[in-house]
Amino acid sequence: MTERLENQLRFIYEADKLKNIARQTLIADKSRPETDAEHSWHFALIAMVLYEYRGYDGVDIDRVIKMALVHDLVEIYAGDTFAYDAEGYESKQKRESEAADRLYALLPAGQAAEYRALWEEFECMETPDAMYANAVDRLQPFINNHLTDGYTWVRHGVLEEQILKRMALLKDALPALWEYVEYVIADSRKKGYIK
Amino acid sequence: MTERLENQLRFIYEADKLKNIARQTLIADKSRPETDAEHSWHFALIAMVLYEYRGYDGVDIDRVIKMALVHDLVEIYAGDTFAYDAEGYESKQKRESEAADRLYALLPAGQAAEYRALWEEFECMETPDAMYANAVDRLQPFINNHLTDGYTWVRHGVLEEQILKRMALLKDALPALWEYVEYVIADSRKKGYIK
Repeated sequence: MTERLENQLRFIYEADKLKNIARQTLIADKSRPETDAEHSWHFALIAMVLYEYRGYDGVDIDRVIKMALVHDLVEIYAGDTFAYDAEGYESKQKRESEAADRLYALLPAGQAAEYRALWEEFECMETPDAMYANAVDRLQPFINNHLTDGYTWVRHGVLEEQILKRMALLKDALPALWEYVEYVIADSRKKGYIK
Repeated sequence: MTERLENQLRFIYEADKLKNIARQTLIADKSRPETDAEHSWHFALIAMVLYEYRGYDGVDIDRVIKMALVHDLVEIYAGDTFAYDAEGYESKQKRESEAADRLYALLPAGQAAEYRALWEEFECMETPDAMYANAVDRLQPFINNHLTDGYTWVRHGVLEEQILKRMALLKDALPALWEYVEYVIADSRKKGYIK
């Protein structure tokens, strides 16, 4: 075996740890938190299913799916930062950048640069692909929170205005879903899941 | 909201159940079985990482990744069939075909046909995309079994010849990985993981 292939296999072994990163969100049957690996799969599938509703020209679904597959890998070392944790968000960028240095160093240089660039593009939210990807990345836990009686919203006392702020990018990136977002928020308010 | 979008959301809710399907294979830290959703994510990522070693011309990585994302969805209703369970394999086709009828009926017709065709192509193993996808689908649990002291091989008394038969398609689909396959089998024999 070449050293190149050995390094790629080592990256594949290390990536398995994404199955150990528990998120705040529950799976739909409420039995346990979902893992980052499960979230990444669901995110990629939802991106496929809802692609026809993309709000920007030139969204490349194949690049979006690859972003979904790699977007949370840095959390293997940096951990999951809860979406409504202001303090955690302050250190998130530094922690995740260091994690990316460590993780992508396992891969051959060209591949490392390619995957890291996909992740950085996702984080920067400037391209149509990244905007659509981020919209779906936010929609997935939003759906699961509604299916699980607002589990993380109740647990952390999340405010309606915080959710609206976080979901606002769907207005442009997935405009056809905005009615659904408003319905879920109204329903969750009525049921006491959010303040 | 249109009825079309409501149906697509219902499919997205139902797909969450792939996180409830436990496989025979453990995650690498040996703490628990991996779920079908986690396997699907890992399969898609490995397909990306090892694409340069594909043994056929004309493998479309974007189609392979989509196959990975949908290939196990039928197990939501049909359950996971263990790779070395001869009896289970006899009824697998019928159970999974009925599961596909039920699952894809949730989606709008065109989308249902597209996803079902991807799954059927994967199952038929006739196109270069399907052959490469099946090779990676078999490589992923093979890797994890080696990382977990041969967990499912020991537990089910799997024979070396059964593993060689199952992995044989890598000789053409991922030829550069064959040396790794032989190394893992020899190492597992030496350590008593396989007979």
